[in-house]
Amino acid sequence: MSYIAPLKDMLFDIEHLANIHEVAKLPLFEDAGLETAQAVLEECAKLNQDVIAPLNVEGDRNPSSLKDTVVTTTPGFKAAYVQYAEGGWQGLQQPTEFGGQGLPKTIGASCTEMINSANMSFALCPLLSDGAIEALLTAGSDELKATYLEKLVTGQWTGTMNLTEPQAGSDLALVRSRAERQPDGTYKVFGTKIFITYGEHDMAENIVHLVLARVPGAPEGVKGISLFVVPKFLVNADGSLGERNDVFCVSIEHKLGIKASPTAVLQYGDHGGAKGYLVGEENRGLEYMFIMMNSARFAVGMQGIAIAERAYQKAVGYARERVQSRPVDGSVAGSAPIIHHPDIRRMLMTMRAQTEGCRAMATVAAAAYDAAHHHPDAEVRKQNQAFYEFMVPLVKGYSTEMSLDVASLGVQVHGGMGFIEETGAAQYLRDAKILTIYEGTTAIQANDLVGRKTLRDGGQVAKAIAAQIEKTEAELAKLGSAEALAVADRLKAARESFVRVVEFVVGSMKASPNAVFAGSVPYLLMAGRLVAGWQLARSLLVATELAAKGQDVPFMQAKIVTARFFADHVLNGVPATAHSIVEGADSATAMALDAF
Amino acid sequence: MSYIAPLKDMLFDIEHLANIHEVAKLPLFEDAGLETAQAVLEECAKLNQDVIAPLNVEGDRNPSSLKDTVVTTTPGFKAAYVQYAEGGWQGLQQPTEFGGQGLPKTIGASCTEMINSANMSFALCPLLSDGAIEALLTAGSDELKATYLEKLVTGQWTGTMNLTEPQAGSDLALVRSRAERQPDGTYKVFGTKIFITYGEHDMAENIVHLVLARVPGAPEGVKGISLFVVPKFLVNADGSLGERNDVFCVSIEHKLGIKASPTAVLQYGDHGGAKGYLVGEENRGLEYMFIMMNSARFAVGMQGIAIAERAYQKAVGYARERVQSRPVDGSVAGSAPIIHHPDIRRMLMTMRAQTEGCRAMATVAAAAYDAAHHHPDAEVRKQNQAFYEFMVPLVKGYSTEMSLDVASLGVQVHGGMGFIEETGAAQYLRDAKILTIYEGTTAIQANDLVGRKTLRDGGQVAKAIAAQIEKTEAELAKLGSAEALAVADRLKAARESFVRVVEFVVGSMKASPNAVFAGSVPYLLMAGRLVAGWQLARSLLVATELAAKGQDVPFMQAKIVTARFFADHVLNGVPATAHSIVEGADSATAMALDAF
Repeated sequence: MSYIAPLKDMLFDIEHLANIHEVAKLPLFEDAGLETAQAVLEECAKLNQDVIAPLNVEGDRNPSSLKDTVVTTTPGFKAAYVQYAEGGWQGLQQPTEFGGQGLPKTIGASCTEMINSANMSFALCPLLSDGAIEALLTAGSDELKATYLEKLVTGQWTGTMNLTEPQAGSDLALVRSRAERQPDGTYKVFGTKIFITYGEHDMAENIVHLVLARVPGAPEGVKGISLFVVPKFLVNADGSLGERNDVFCVSIEHKLGIKASPTAVLQYGDHGGAKGYLVGEENRGLEYMFIMMNSARFAVGMQGIAIAERAYQKAVGYARERVQSRPVDGSVAGSAPIIHHPDIRRMLMTMRAQTEGCRAMATVAAAAYDAAHHHPDAEVRKQNQAFYEFMVPLVKGYSTEMSLDVASLGVQVHGGMGFIEETGAAQYLRDAKILTIYEGTTAIQANDLVGRKTLRDGGQVAKAIAAQIEKTEAELAKLGSAEALAVADRLKAARESFVRVVEFVVGSMKASPNAVFAGSVPYLLMAGRLVAGWQLARSLLVATELAAKGQDVPFMQAKIVTARFFADHVLNGVPATAHSIVEGADSATAMALDAF
Repeated sequence: MSYIAPLKDMLFDIEHLANIHEVAKLPLFEDAGLETAQAVLEECAKLNQDVIAPLNVEGDRNPSSLKDTVVTTTPGFKAAYVQYAEGGWQGLQQPTEFGGQGLPKTIGASCTEMINSANMSFALCPLLSDGAIEALLTAGSDELKATYLEKLVTGQWTGTMNLTEPQAGSDLALVRSRAERQPDGTYKVFGTKIFITYGEHDMAENIVHLVLARVPGAPEGVKGISLFVVPKFLVNADGSLGERNDVFCVSIEHKLGIKASPTAVLQYGDHGGAKGYLVGEENRGLEYMFIMMNSARFAVGMQGIAIAERAYQKAVGYARERVQSRPVDGSVAGSAPIIHHPDIRRMLMTMRAQTEGCRAMATVAAAAYDAAHHHPDAEVRKQNQAFYEFMVPLVKGYSTEMSLDVASLGVQVHGGMGFIEETGAAQYLRDAKILTIYEGTTAIQANDLVGRKTLRDGGQVAKAIAAQIEKTEAELAKLGSAEALAVADRLKAARESFVRVVEFVVGSMKASPNAVFAGSVPYLLMAGRLVAGWQLARSLLVATELAAKGQDVPFMQAKIVTARFFADHVLNGVPATAHSIVEGADSATAMALDAF
């Protein structure tokens, strides 16, 4: 099998780090305890392992193609998508009133990981549908909800997010697409949107585009952007499909990776105007889009974890099989499988520790999301919301940056074979490179971390997290094992460095915004390392306790080794990053612009 | 122009760091002073900028193809190669007696960089010819030299290195190809070689394969490997081409990058045996191959620098043109070119500092090579040889690892456009990924650094380098500028950490070989950062002095900023790496093998 879902690790995180028993106390989630999680994850693993994963290589070799505005996806994708939709997977976390299963994100996050490990190009279609669903749930009128939600939730139709235009990428203030109000209350939408994932395809009967555009007389900049639903096929009053709307795919991109996922240029309104429906109020589009984006950003973070997991599994498989050279310690007399060589093990450990660290971080963030949305106590909801919002740029930014390193190490473990496309390791690297770019580049995530998540509250949430980490350090000290003490040391140094940087960010913004923003990505990366390392430290505490009780000792030992490795090899770099941010801010921006 | 050779920076290094005036005092190099360097580099730049660079994208889109054992290269490659050969560039560093120009490596290294920046796939053909020339110069009989050298040096024929077999990659002990001695003193060669760069092509009239194989009764392992010349076409006594030899290309690989460079599977002897000629003595093949490899490894390091330079230039170009968002410091009222954004500048500075640091390191290593080969004083030769040999794994290992990061940052600067193949930034990332693999993976370089370059002399050369670095620190302290003092601080910390690791390596090998080799790649990377940072620190000293004299002040200021940036953002991570190596050795190898 080309992919085996890491159910044991996922369930460990869900049970012991995300505390699913607490999630199951929330209203609506009474049935969503550990047993449900296990049953859902096992079922999800089957579909992804057996049906979706085998299409991954095929998608890379035989990508989506365009002919006369029609996109044909990779053979097998449509049938797999139908199976996915019919299994109810699109609606896993969506409200039951619209045909969803209403499960918590604490469970859903692992399912998102699995489908992306199986086939990232395929998984992008449901990922974008989720964004559209989220936007309609948040701001759609009852009529829009009634018309579109159930079809999207059941996967009968799919959704897209249309933000980017040739001149407007990270800077949505530059969006120029326009929407003109018609007497019947609908709009005519005109413009060109680029980089639209699954903007056109043949896997579902209709596509629901969510489109940013300006109405006449709207304010300049981001405060003049509205959000519209523009379906590929208009929908009749009885819910059946009507005429073809005036939105057409004029080209799809030739990309480094995720080749099976069609990245469309969509032309709106060239034949009189595409019929669109306002979502919420005029000029509040960006606000709604941010809701979609927060959800999508978390999911992209899961993609990073997913591709890292798949790259790790492939590398381990090769390292067990490839025989080359005698181990330096003489433990094998002749040539041995390369997994015996210390450098191969260092690479595999790096891949594994980064993947498990980010998975733990994301699972805990998902549980915070659930509490933020469903806890009966408003104060608890608020705290969890703040924690979750701080985590989103870390899950997105850090998990994707690490996935690049992990996928590159995956190629490296394969040596020369890794460079040959038939091997398959290179595809993960090519696929992963989009993750630090779309749904906001790492720099955009870092801007969010600095601006909305740190400066806005003067660093309070950041410091509250640091205080929680300090408690974990105390628990490690109390446990007192050699591993726990070593991890506590590294965690303390990293946490102190983090607080130092938070204070630098808050204290320097007014006088030296360039200095703060030159350090924004390093700040994000150090925060990601800290939180991932912290969650692995928590794993160590749990694993030590369970191992002492004799529960699955080899697994628990592996968790302990992984936490220690992360502390010794990843977390220990945090103080130097803090130094770069604080003392290195000047040299990062000192070069004269014309000297580059 | 898609590539502009960084002549100013190259000549700065050649003049002030590699001290070309000292090289020009060596016998044979009397005419190879700064003026010669400048003239050669300018001529080289023209050819590469105007003729070879424009073929780079074409090579990626329209790679070499195979039909019936015949490889057809990218349109334009053959004509460009003829121009390259006729310009005498193949023989730049080769002896004049065989038609070369006899120039020092101090100059040649920059030319190697340029052709690889222009077109890495193209440049691989001459790179491999250089290896074949080196092997024949070292160990070829007079007859072999007379038959092959001039044709190779003038570029009329090309050369290859045939090491790898399906079961023998990093581990050459597993080579199975065999060579049977014939009554006339020639050999019949049989076997399959894979990953043979330019193993078959249409750019030159003959190909001279250098092939590792075993003679009957040879000892097991690497001590039983011999080296043979196997020409594609046999050579008549008068030097004209004779019959086709029994070596045929049976397939070429479909690769992640360097697509224009044909990577051949060569089948030897399927029609009775390929005629081969022994190079040197039987069973000493690996020894000769190592000479070729040392030369090729240095050149691969230059490829890393080259691709990093090209990626940097492209990213700067895009960052100047792409308008997106308002600068955080309010320095521009509206949306500005993204080069105004601090994170873009941080990325560009990282790319630039890494590239310049590695270029400085390689140029200094090249000068040591020249002194090692030509200095009249045996003791000076020996010292330079030891220094050069220590540098080879750093130039190869570190420059290529950094080139991956730099090429990835190059894509990142381009945002979504970077992921689109038409943009061209992604090609550099795809091309770069081979560099950490071929001519010995980074782990193989690290084994060399640990084994031959550190353990063998008990760390003496390493410590001698550290002592030289300490002198630079003293000079920085004496200079006393804020930049000099900051750099001195970081350099000192890095140098002390390096010495600590050298002592760990030397002291722990016997008791804990796994611990030492688990840290071997981190050791290589920290040593690379240290030496590159040291050379940039030397640049800072020179640049400060020259700026004070009013010489090209903007350039000198840029050198100072770059040195400072490298110290604050790259060099400052060295102590943490030392910690990982020493304290983290256990956790790197603690995972049970079956727990992966």
